[in-house]
Amino acid sequence: MLAAASLALSAAAQTWVWYPGDYEIWLGNRMNNNRTERGAFFPPFWKTDSHYVTVEFSKDLDLPEDEVITIKAEGKYNVKLDGKLQFGEPSEFRLPAGKHKLNIKVWNQATPPALYVKGKTVNTDSSWKVTNEDKEWIDESGKASDTSATTYALAGYWNFDDIDIPPSAFTLQYEPLEKVTVKEITADGGKLYDFGKETFGRIVLKDVTGNGNVNIYYGESPEEALDIDFCETLDKIGFGADKVTDLATAATAERNKDYTLDNTKAFRYVYIAPESGVDVADASMLYEYAPVEYRGTFKCSDPELNRIWDVGAYTMHLTTREFFIDGIKRDRWVWSGDAVQSYLMNYYLFFDSPTVKRTTRLLRGKDPVTAHINTIMDYTLYWFIGIYDYYLYTGDKEFVKEIYPRMQTMMDYVLSRTNKDGMLEGMTGDWVFVDWADFPMSKQGALAFEQVLLCKSLETMKLCADIVGDDKDAKLYGELAADLRGKLIPTFWNEEKQALVHNVENGKKSDQVNKFANMFAINFGYFDEPTTESVMTNVMLNPDVPAITTPYMRFYELESLCDQGLQERVLTEMKDYWGGMLREGATSFWEKYNPGDSGTQHLSMYGRPYGKSLCHAWGASPIYLIGKYYLGVRPLKPGYEEFSITPNLGGLKWMEGTVPTPDGEISLYVNTREIKVKATQGKGYINFRSKVKPKSDYGTVEKTGDNSYRLFIDTDRQITIKYKEV
Amino acid sequence: MLAAASLALSAAAQTWVWYPGDYEIWLGNRMNNNRTERGAFFPPFWKTDSHYVTVEFSKDLDLPEDEVITIKAEGKYNVKLDGKLQFGEPSEFRLPAGKHKLNIKVWNQATPPALYVKGKTVNTDSSWKVTNEDKEWIDESGKASDTSATTYALAGYWNFDDIDIPPSAFTLQYEPLEKVTVKEITADGGKLYDFGKETFGRIVLKDVTGNGNVNIYYGESPEEALDIDFCETLDKIGFGADKVTDLATAATAERNKDYTLDNTKAFRYVYIAPESGVDVADASMLYEYAPVEYRGTFKCSDPELNRIWDVGAYTMHLTTREFFIDGIKRDRWVWSGDAVQSYLMNYYLFFDSPTVKRTTRLLRGKDPVTAHINTIMDYTLYWFIGIYDYYLYTGDKEFVKEIYPRMQTMMDYVLSRTNKDGMLEGMTGDWVFVDWADFPMSKQGALAFEQVLLCKSLETMKLCADIVGDDKDAKLYGELAADLRGKLIPTFWNEEKQALVHNVENGKKSDQVNKFANMFAINFGYFDEPTTESVMTNVMLNPDVPAITTPYMRFYELESLCDQGLQERVLTEMKDYWGGMLREGATSFWEKYNPGDSGTQHLSMYGRPYGKSLCHAWGASPIYLIGKYYLGVRPLKPGYEEFSITPNLGGLKWMEGTVPTPDGEISLYVNTREIKVKATQGKGYINFRSKVKPKSDYGTVEKTGDNSYRLFIDTDRQITIKYKEV
Repeated sequence: MLAAASLALSAAAQTWVWYPGDYEIWLGNRMNNNRTERGAFFPPFWKTDSHYVTVEFSKDLDLPEDEVITIKAEGKYNVKLDGKLQFGEPSEFRLPAGKHKLNIKVWNQATPPALYVKGKTVNTDSSWKVTNEDKEWIDESGKASDTSATTYALAGYWNFDDIDIPPSAFTLQYEPLEKVTVKEITADGGKLYDFGKETFGRIVLKDVTGNGNVNIYYGESPEEALDIDFCETLDKIGFGADKVTDLATAATAERNKDYTLDNTKAFRYVYIAPESGVDVADASMLYEYAPVEYRGTFKCSDPELNRIWDVGAYTMHLTTREFFIDGIKRDRWVWSGDAVQSYLMNYYLFFDSPTVKRTTRLLRGKDPVTAHINTIMDYTLYWFIGIYDYYLYTGDKEFVKEIYPRMQTMMDYVLSRTNKDGMLEGMTGDWVFVDWADFPMSKQGALAFEQVLLCKSLETMKLCADIVGDDKDAKLYGELAADLRGKLIPTFWNEEKQALVHNVENGKKSDQVNKFANMFAINFGYFDEPTTESVMTNVMLNPDVPAITTPYMRFYELESLCDQGLQERVLTEMKDYWGGMLREGATSFWEKYNPGDSGTQHLSMYGRPYGKSLCHAWGASPIYLIGKYYLGVRPLKPGYEEFSITPNLGGLKWMEGTVPTPDGEISLYVNTREIKVKATQGKGYINFRSKVKPKSDYGTVEKTGDNSYRLFIDTDRQITIKYKEV
Repeated sequence: MLAAASLALSAAAQTWVWYPGDYEIWLGNRMNNNRTERGAFFPPFWKTDSHYVTVEFSKDLDLPEDEVITIKAEGKYNVKLDGKLQFGEPSEFRLPAGKHKLNIKVWNQATPPALYVKGKTVNTDSSWKVTNEDKEWIDESGKASDTSATTYALAGYWNFDDIDIPPSAFTLQYEPLEKVTVKEITADGGKLYDFGKETFGRIVLKDVTGNGNVNIYYGESPEEALDIDFCETLDKIGFGADKVTDLATAATAERNKDYTLDNTKAFRYVYIAPESGVDVADASMLYEYAPVEYRGTFKCSDPELNRIWDVGAYTMHLTTREFFIDGIKRDRWVWSGDAVQSYLMNYYLFFDSPTVKRTTRLLRGKDPVTAHINTIMDYTLYWFIGIYDYYLYTGDKEFVKEIYPRMQTMMDYVLSRTNKDGMLEGMTGDWVFVDWADFPMSKQGALAFEQVLLCKSLETMKLCADIVGDDKDAKLYGELAADLRGKLIPTFWNEEKQALVHNVENGKKSDQVNKFANMFAINFGYFDEPTTESVMTNVMLNPDVPAITTPYMRFYELESLCDQGLQERVLTEMKDYWGGMLREGATSFWEKYNPGDSGTQHLSMYGRPYGKSLCHAWGASPIYLIGKYYLGVRPLKPGYEEFSITPNLGGLKWMEGTVPTPDGEISLYVNTREIKVKATQGKGYINFRSKVKPKSDYGTVEKTGDNSYRLFIDTDRQITIKYKEV
């Protein structure tokens, strides 16, 4: 079953429903608050929102005959039929035939109020309305007021279709995994377990005998696991005669032969060190994972690139959980800048729209907006851009309509913090992040980078305002976007350096040139063609411009190179950079990689010897680059109504792969003489270059230029094109 | 122990602390959601807020020596010393000597994160800072950011000084009460229990035998209890072999000989009707009450007035619970218009400041403001005025500083809804209430009544802005208040009728005159003296102006009469109106009383035969009128730093009573020849009229006019004045 298809189905069948966004905020709190640092609980430092505690669900009915419904709620609830309250909290209720209004109000402080109604025709689904504030009252005579001021939303839902499994009971899935090797480290029985690759889950201590404390030190590297004073995460478990105590939380459990830890950790290595009096015979783990499906595939003639794709996909799988998170060892938090890349990788791997939507809702949280998302200015702007991308890849207008009001209040906040030129400068409390850069970079004044992102954000607002039919604001956002875009070159362009400079500070244009603003301007198509070419030469390919050392920004850097047709060069860079991590033993991709580092230098960050995350979503960008720029598949119209396929071998002998679409997929096999392509959804051109006049077994190949051809694909059968690579 | 004194103490000693306002919001949800209607759960229809789920408490320390603290939290927590996270959730922690920064972060979805720290010198109290959003982060090198953007508040607290009784465990107190009479109603064992007066609590079913359902119908009148189809509240309890089920909530309990209901109800009468197979031998109750103390007293030569005062005091006691609520039978909700009167009565009865503060916090809730308080325009304005009164009576600047930021955002909302003249008109979703009036009254356009309240609200903002030192906004609010006040007469005055007219609608001044705007303008001193006199004659004492029939608005009406020295007339009106309720058998005062009604007409409201509340806080206004206008005690400067005592017998032969002050009391005995007065706090004049030159055993009596005298009181001993009543 395809993700998008199952989504559509669950909207039609009965399912648990709630106030849109509230479940995500609650689940997000549970997720973000799983972070620990050396046994200390470590929640996020930004404002944590919470669900509306009282919400009312409603549905207008027109029943041909009486119908008995089953009602279940998470929370205390009441039932109103045509405005009349019914006795108690009925679990079964007979609805009379005819036109009626059914309202069910639910209160729950601890978890989001949720509702499940199951009848012959009356079932909770996304067509139910929900409000957190019914503006209704009755006058002294008992007459009900006009409720026209009440703001209703359509109910939120996911895939909780079983009445007996309420939303708050959600967990990821588990699978037992065994160690690959184990090594005795000390005479007193400490052992280092290696699970063979980066993984995530709960440790199982087996056959524990005696009484005493067992210390568990986790490592993404063996150095970390064995460094009991500096490893990032650890557990201390006390074994008593009858009970077992988690010494960090003081939670206790009955003592059995084996003990499975309550909490999850990221690790490849685990050093288990029992104190005297207690012995642990063995250890295994319960692997915890989100049941997402690899719908995208890739294979080619270069085994190293295949390995890069596979490790990238695994990195994505590990960081795709309740939400798209940054990395699994340390933060385990949802960060907007990380998420916007995960979304794009996801479109070429899982195409799991629900996870994109959940993450987008959680990041936004509730009004009022009191800070940037994750407190970071750029991350607020990525949040808008992520919605632009989501709509382009999925065509999901329903979600745009749901999220638009919160986009507006978020943009209100952004616009309330612009300077007289309509540009964003860091104010007190704003984290102006950009990147972890190895060169000095001012965060003062107006950064060209932030204005490029703001411009795209305003364009996103315009797009979404058009979708929801908000003409007035569409005009406003369109004008603001055009105005800002018009100011980019006058404000930041340095003619001599042929580049956008880094910033304008105290009215003074800086001399500093780096790649950040320039590559985003290329990717967003903000330069004309000659300027783009000049910026490619003078900035992107200029060795004097400081190098980018995070996979995070390499994502956009390599995208801009691919965008200019430099796939061959990018292939070399991928093999150097991601291949470099593999040669360092990576089994998942890292938060940061500096090829100049060696040994344990690779492990340190944030002033801590093992501070660096070795499984970081933004490390997986080859997934996106390969799908979009080698297989060359992308949506031209929302939801792949029209696609574009521009395969580019980039020096490979052959490649084959699949790119998922909302309700189908696009598969390709390409070598230097033959292209096989099959698209089960959408229509569009495949574009390619050929030294000879190509032959196709379908349609008519058109010549579009020197050695350039295209073929319109409007069939879901496989098409074979014979050609000769240029 | 005086309430205000105990408040000050609990702020100094260790006590449970939380984010200010959050506990009240949580407790308020629990309270408001106790409303039921014929067995259905009936939560408020306005937006229900909730607490911040993650908050950080902090304290800067400077310790002469090491100190071990005990830590307890409601929620999952961590401990940071000087920015370094400590392992686990330590219940004991050693603080080293010297300067240190202690931070404890608590997460709790279900109940407000709360903290208790107990040490030799380090104890949680109101000096601890708390934030829900620390704007902090570290850079790649591990350097912590500037956290100067983080907004801290001072911790909230009440009187939870016992580490083992966390705030979420709070309950009111209970006391067993017995029926006064019981009457068999039917052959099958139904019995009507009479508890002798209006009361509140849990029914106890005694010696229940057999199996089956027991139906319990509550009544504030015998008619209501016996009308099983229309009584407002009821319970259905199912007795099985081993367990008892509350059929409304499906909650079960083990079956014992007696069964105490889980929920509370208001009633004087209870009709207990077991279905066949089950028998209830007897019933009693657990009376539930707030442990507030009657600090105000009153006794006089008129036994009926004494009874009015006593029943008023009892009405106040019944409606003073977790918060000041409207009435105990039906809504059991916190309404701002009701509360602002409860506050004033409270200052003459309990002087319980914590309940005023709790109610004020709950009513305000959280940002963003999306509607008027309780959805009612006037109720938002009363909320401001309640803070004005609170400050005047208590002098509590600490609370003003706490609540001021939420006053600002509330006023932002109000000001965002004014018309071009700066006046409030009802917009979609606004309930323009004014009163339950028996005459037609337009709610359209700008009502004079609402503008008078708005003017006082803006004056309150100016006062509070001055207190917190917000000069800029003090100026703004001052100007807005002056501007609006200047517009009242030009906009609403009708020269012929010598009155403010009801409203201006579509630019047209209405002809309708009623008392509402006029009496508030008198009470707020908005008319000059001649205008006041004319309005008294032409409106307040004019029988052609429609009469007020709710005790709610009679509160202000009688206040304005007293304000003009008409105590004798008001005494007659009190005896007519409140005496009228007593003669109808009232044991607490009602939501509405129309002397023209008879029999069961008195019970109906809202189109329901027993819709009217027979125990409504706003029914108790004689408590306020007597204290302020007969005993004549009021603060002139905040917190009774200066008081004014202007006794007025109003035709009584003698009266005696006590008015509480924040840290003391003012006691009076007055007859026509002698005044005895004793003020244990503050200084001020006693003003009185006398036909002869008065004699005092303290100070010097000054003559202030014809038959008018005053004496400055700056002693806490009893003073006796000999005089002769005019």
